[in-house]
Amino acid sequence: MKKLLIINGPNLNLLGLREKEVYGSQTFEDYLTELIAEFGDRAELDYFQSNVEGEIINALHDARGRYDGVVLNAGGYTHTSVAIADAIGAVAACGLKTVEVHISNIMAREEFRHVSLIAPRCAGSVMGFGMQSYRLAVYSFL
Amino acid sequence: MKKLLIINGPNLNLLGLREKEVYGSQTFEDYLTELIAEFGDRAELDYFQSNVEGEIINALHDARGRYDGVVLNAGGYTHTSVAIADAIGAVAACGLKTVEVHISNIMAREEFRHVSLIAPRCAGSVMGFGMQSYRLAVYSFL
Amino acid sequence: MKKLLIINGPNLNLLGLREKEVYGSQTFEDYLTELIAEFGDRAELDYFQSNVEGEIINALHDARGRYDGVVLNAGGYTHTSVAIADAIGAVAACGLKTVEVHISNIMAREEFRHVSLIAPRCAGSVMGFGMQSYRLAVYSFL
Amino acid sequence: MKKLLIINGPNLNLLGLREKEVYGSQTFEDYLTELIAEFGDRAELDYFQSNVEGEIINALHDARGRYDGVVLNAGGYTHTSVAIADAIGAVAACGLKTVEVHISNIMAREEFRHVSLIAPRCAGSVMGFGMQSYRLAVYSFL
Amino acid sequence: MKKLLIINGPNLNLLGLREKEVYGSQTFEDYLTELIAEFGDRAELDYFQSNVEGEIINALHDARGRYDGVVLNAGGYTHTSVAIADAIGAVAACGLKTVEVHISNIMAREEFRHVSLIAPRCAGSVMGFGMQSYRLAVYSFL
Amino acid sequence: MKKLLIINGPNLNLLGLREKEVYGSQTFEDYLTELIAEFGDRAELDYFQSNVEGEIINALHDARGRYDGVVLNAGGYTHTSVAIADAIGAVAACGLKTVEVHISNIMAREEFRHVSLIAPRCAGSVMGFGMQSYRLAVYSFL
Amino acid sequence: MKKLLIINGPNLNLLGLREKEVYGSQTFEDYLTELIAEFGDRAELDYFQSNVEGEIINALHDARGRYDGVVLNAGGYTHTSVAIADAIGAVAACGLKTVEVHISNIMAREEFRHVSLIAPRCAGSVMGFGMQSYRLAVYSFL
Amino acid sequence: MKKLLIINGPNLNLLGLREKEVYGSQTFEDYLTELIAEFGDRAELDYFQSNVEGEIINALHDARGRYDGVVLNAGGYTHTSVAIADAIGAVAACGLKTVEVHISNIMAREEFRHVSLIAPRCAGSVMGFGMQSYRLAVYSFL
Amino acid sequence: MKKLLIINGPNLNLLGLREKEVYGSQTFEDYLTELIAEFGDRAELDYFQSNVEGEIINALHDARGRYDGVVLNAGGYTHTSVAIADAIGAVAACGLKTVEVHISNIMAREEFRHVSLIAPRCAGSVMGFGMQSYRLAVYSFL
Amino acid sequence: MKKLLIINGPNLNLLGLREKEVYGSQTFEDYLTELIAEFGDRAELDYFQSNVEGEIINALHDARGRYDGVVLNAGGYTHTSVAIADAIGAVAACGLKTVEVHISNIMAREEFRHVSLIAPRCAGSVMGFGMQSYRLAVYSFL
Amino acid sequence: MKKLLIINGPNLNLLGLREKEVYGSQTFEDYLTELIAEFGDRAELDYFQSNVEGEIINALHDARGRYDGVVLNAGGYTHTSVAIADAIGAVAACGLKTVEVHISNIMAREEFRHVSLIAPRCAGSVMGFGMQSYRLAVYSFL
Amino acid sequence: MKKLLIINGPNLNLLGLREKEVYGSQTFEDYLTELIAEFGDRAELDYFQSNVEGEIINALHDARGRYDGVVLNAGGYTHTSVAIADAIGAVAACGLKTVEVHISNIMAREEFRHVSLIAPRCAGSVMGFGMQSYRLAVYSFL
Repeated sequence: MKKLLIINGPNLNLLGLREKEVYGSQTFEDYLTELIAEFGDRAELDYFQSNVEGEIINALHDARGRYDGVVLNAGGYTHTSVAIADAIGAVAACGLKTVEVHISNIMAREEFRHVSLIAPRCAGSVMGFGMQSYRLAVYSFL
Repeated sequence: MKKLLIINGPNLNLLGLREKEVYGSQTFEDYLTELIAEFGDRAELDYFQSNVEGEIINALHDARGRYDGVVLNAGGYTHTSVAIADAIGAVAACGLKTVEVHISNIMAREEFRHVSLIAPRCAGSVMGFGMQSYRLAVYSFL
Repeated sequence: MKKLLIINGPNLNLLGLREKEVYGSQTFEDYLTELIAEFGDRAELDYFQSNVEGEIINALHDARGRYDGVVLNAGGYTHTSVAIADAIGAVAACGLKTVEVHISNIMAREEFRHVSLIAPRCAGSVMGFGMQSYRLAVYSFL
Repeated sequence: MKKLLIINGPNLNLLGLREKEVYGSQTFEDYLTELIAEFGDRAELDYFQSNVEGEIINALHDARGRYDGVVLNAGGYTHTSVAIADAIGAVAACGLKTVEVHISNIMAREEFRHVSLIAPRCAGSVMGFGMQSYRLAVYSFL
Repeated sequence: MKKLLIINGPNLNLLGLREKEVYGSQTFEDYLTELIAEFGDRAELDYFQSNVEGEIINALHDARGRYDGVVLNAGGYTHTSVAIADAIGAVAACGLKTVEVHISNIMAREEFRHVSLIAPRCAGSVMGFGMQSYRLAVYSFL
Repeated sequence: MKKLLIINGPNLNLLGLREKEVYGSQTFEDYLTELIAEFGDRAELDYFQSNVEGEIINALHDARGRYDGVVLNAGGYTHTSVAIADAIGAVAACGLKTVEVHISNIMAREEFRHVSLIAPRCAGSVMGFGMQSYRLAVYSFL
Repeated sequence: MKKLLIINGPNLNLLGLREKEVYGSQTFEDYLTELIAEFGDRAELDYFQSNVEGEIINALHDARGRYDGVVLNAGGYTHTSVAIADAIGAVAACGLKTVEVHISNIMAREEFRHVSLIAPRCAGSVMGFGMQSYRLAVYSFL
Repeated sequence: MKKLLIINGPNLNLLGLREKEVYGSQTFEDYLTELIAEFGDRAELDYFQSNVEGEIINALHDARGRYDGVVLNAGGYTHTSVAIADAIGAVAACGLKTVEVHISNIMAREEFRHVSLIAPRCAGSVMGFGMQSYRLAVYSFL
Repeated sequence: MKKLLIINGPNLNLLGLREKEVYGSQTFEDYLTELIAEFGDRAELDYFQSNVEGEIINALHDARGRYDGVVLNAGGYTHTSVAIADAIGAVAACGLKTVEVHISNIMAREEFRHVSLIAPRCAGSVMGFGMQSYRLAVYSFL
Repeated sequence: MKKLLIINGPNLNLLGLREKEVYGSQTFEDYLTELIAEFGDRAELDYFQSNVEGEIINALHDARGRYDGVVLNAGGYTHTSVAIADAIGAVAACGLKTVEVHISNIMAREEFRHVSLIAPRCAGSVMGFGMQSYRLAVYSFL
Repeated sequence: MKKLLIINGPNLNLLGLREKEVYGSQTFEDYLTELIAEFGDRAELDYFQSNVEGEIINALHDARGRYDGVVLNAGGYTHTSVAIADAIGAVAACGLKTVEVHISNIMAREEFRHVSLIAPRCAGSVMGFGMQSYRLAVYSFL
Repeated sequence: MKKLLIINGPNLNLLGLREKEVYGSQTFEDYLTELIAEFGDRAELDYFQSNVEGEIINALHDARGRYDGVVLNAGGYTHTSVAIADAIGAVAACGLKTVEVHISNIMAREEFRHVSLIAPRCAGSVMGFGMQSYRLAVYSFL
């Protein structure tokens, strides 16, 4: 059984409450319940959310040796944070793989969202499938 | 009576103590007292300052349902924070308008300050009037 | 009592007649009547509109010594006119301050509208508040 | 049971024969056999490969009404083909969804591979998981 | 005797644990012990590390009046943080000099690391000498 | 019978007198006579020329309600005038279509002529056919 | 009587079947019938369509000596094909003129569609008039 | 004896009245008197000033056949006016040479002043010598 | 004796028939006869030409194990085809070297011809010597 | 009497021998004789030419205190030499003014010649008047 | 018998002594001996090397009338020297052809090496064949 | 005892004589005396200065085997010289390390000084500490 940590970055605590035409109307907590049910004893899924860039870095550091992988939606920090990218690279060097997910297709949105600074450090990227992006990311570890 | 939250971003806690030729010699707390006096019972003004990007996002989230509007000087994050811009968009979708202010005219300073990532998500922008920018922003809610 | 000149640039004579979803349905003349009423004896407001770049420059030159300030919406010339920017700088050197206004938020529109050539020469900028941008600009002189 | 068409673009017929450090040593045909076995009666998988840009467009056109979805690895055309992007958009308008896959992480390779012209027209994108990217793409239809 | 504060930014808490081919295999704490020994009674060296951008700004603010200088390795924030650059400028205006250090030569790494937003506000920059960069930075205050 | 206004911008009053290898040796007035003859009672063609950007805007404004369409060769203003582009958009919103014409192929000339700011606001564009570009533009209204 | 070849590039075989809000709901074959009827014995119109870039080049080569002109809508290849541009130049050097057409106004769509690589080699360009663009292009040969 | 027309563009009517540290404190009329005296019967100097771009074009057109040369300081239009550049080219094709002058060194000022659109069409350029630039330009015709 | 395949890309079938001032007046077939004569039993030269990008890729793939080297003039695809570049890299990984040739000096022509996407994957490049470029490329294999 | 040093940079020793359509057919030595004659006892003109960037810098350094001014045509170094620009700035700080000249109009030639790195450090620039540019530059010192 | 001058630019005197994985381990003098032997009485090969940009220009100037051609490896000056490019153009205008060579493939190295300023002035370019590039360049003169 | 060579590039021979507000008022020779005194028998310091780019390359070449390290202030060549960067790389491959120094902070000056072409080849960089930058560079070898 794989033990995975799902990390959600800034504003993803409002999923289901805001811009529903882009992100859908389900809260992440509701979706997580479904996900846990679907994967049953194939994967144990923990969850962490923060709006603070440095706390996401801390969470990545702390996951070393405690999880088999990380599923990360870095939200708006995806496009600006060299520091999170460095953190992903650092924990990868310690043997912990991170998979990048996005609910929407970042290449179909504003120009400044087309670049992902963290993608080059991740084991893979899944984007544009709505909430299902998380599900596909979990499958990548199985 | 309108209830408004003024949020100041990084380094604005040093107003009046640093670079006085750019920002003037008044502390924000002193100015706030004047502002509260000027608007009297037309506006109730609360104040929050943080140097942490994520705490500004938290403050925006928490303001939903509790304030009639936000006056935001995001300081240096104005030019780099997709995450704060997303937060403004998210709370706007919940009915909370944010007005952007700058003490100096950002277009007359260094090139990298010419772009405001948050402006497109704000209800309006006021800049270059010194401390008075906050006053004009408050007027926009009355 | 402050004596101010409001200058509107190209196409603003069609306000209320065109693209109402962007600019609203009120003509500027109607709005001006409201504005004059609101400010009463605190500000005397004169009005000039032209579609010709050079006539706007002439108006700025002529305002020296006759007005306490200028409220300028340069319309499409905002993004292309070095000559108007120079004029604002020239009259500022003669002691006449100009405040830039825009009805819409220029940073939320097409890329070529994101740059304001005139902003660096103005005393301040107000944008995105609809017609109310003019009102806030007038407040900045009081 | 979902009926899906996997389309591979230029040079992918050499998978397993070339640059094994980037793309691995398995031929796509071998991998396809595994994939068909894994999905059993949940998905019927057909396969088409061409080095000719226009034949990929033809294949997309012909898939309308005959498949429930397309899994597309456009290879080098990913970064240069407005025409394939248009084709994906055209068949999407006809109700046929396309999912983009890449074996390697295109954002971790040469600069000119960072942009995917086809991503904005696809239902989602999966990249960087090696051959497994195809498997995750198939899961997205189930 | 000079009293100096060494501030390390994001991921530098993992020094010696990650990417040893780039950063070497010594932890910063071990190196600090050597440094304190080398400078003896010529310099008193305090140390602060945080992964949170805003806490680095707070540390800079708090150093005013308490230290003779700051040695700052801002890590990934070097390239993205206007807010830290502003903080360095603000405390410099209060008489506190900051020296920038980097373990590796940022100009020999990825393109996005070539720009240092903080360099223009620092009293000087030292980079590329491995851990020894900190030592040279301390010498600059003696 | 369609009533159309042909507007020629700066320097087009010198047609036939200057750079004949680029623009031919016929004056526009001579060509207009031919055009009126060719279209006979199918189209009534009026003509206006000005070297002043603002007068072209005025002419566009005045054409509302009086013409069925405008054929516009904005000359050098094509590449620089946001204000004329706005005017075309404004009168289009009032139901008056503008068709853009160029005598030469602007994309085969200097780089700075490759961009047409007015094209996105026009109903269509015709360029490169010499004087005949006007004729094709008139046909587009019939 | 002029003998002309109309060449349509990629995806234009789906005209009338896809994105009708952009391209209208008429198939090109239906429109061609109308066009042949309109021009009667003034022009003989042949038609060729291919999604393959190289086949369009072949068609241009083969048209030398057999047609009086070519009307070309290169679709997505307009923006990316140096090879088609070279082919147009090569046959022009052999005396065969090509006129570029686009159904929509390419300058009012996505940024990457603003550049036409083939325009500088064509005798003229017509765009934005819907199907009528082809009609105006034919007129340019009469 | 050479008959020359000096044309001054926008804001140059304020010479001597504004920004004296950049442009000096002499009005152009005073300087012109000196210039006329210096050249005596070697050159007849006429003078025209306008803030309107189109009137400068008109003046250039009208100078054909009436003057031996034009000395032009296009002010802010130097950097933005394709139309004036076209006018200079058009009258040059008619045998009338234009010499560009600038009081200050445009390459030592703001970035947007570094490009002169009109320089490539002029017979020569003189800049940075203060008022004396006009004098040198006149010498170039003698 | 070396066995080499010469591949010519789009429009090179028209050599000697078009733009003779750039490419000369000899057909490639005539030149090939000369080349075969010059190299006699030192090199066996086969020839393939196609206007279709994918067929050039197919020819490169098929040359593995059958030729000692490839001389490739990719014509217009030189500047746009990531897919051909990938194919060259793929067959190079299989031990087949490709040498790039151009008849004209691509760096002395239009800007868009200055970049060769295929050069980095080729064993060497020869350009600007007219037909003789092919001869030098053959020499490189001897 | 003013004592001036004329410095010519790389390739200007070939004036009159090369590209006569651009630079004319007179050698610089012949022209210099004319110039000396024209200025008689108003100016003493010395001449130095070198193809070596550093020798031009040496010449500028050595001119301090020995000449009243320098007339410099830096040739190809105009566009690339920060070091010569620094030298001009350094001797200017010592009271020696340099005037930049160009025989041709650099803004009407290749793109890479449009930027002059040395212009911002010079007292003025004269270009495009052929050999006469030197004459006008000398006049600027009288 | 052709008389040719081989000119090597900066650092090429260290060939065989430095970075052998890029440039090989043979000194140029050793290679030259081989080359002279290979060409025997078909070509006389002289050799000049300098690290000084201006001396390379001098060598090009001096070669006029004394050599039938120049083989030039300008080393690092390839990418930065407008002055050498001008020299090549100047001697070409005097009838002396220069062929550019590079040992490595400059387009497969760092970005700043992709542009050759001298290529447009050369008769042809050969690059990427190691020392053999010189041999092919000599062949181009035979 | 370490034997080090200090190389100063263009214009640094004028240190103390020019722009004292930027570079201070001490000549380099005076400073060198201090430096030699400070390091005593820990380091032997030789000094070379040249304004000629190629002589700096020669000095670097000649330092191989004779010095333990080089301290280089390349002045204006820092930003333009690929050839010096190559020389540093070449001697580094021979075991001779170079440390880059700058008196001022190049990132706080003009845009064109922000890029150091030589930094990626150097063992480390020290900048912004005034003359003291040389001292810190020497420390890096001890």
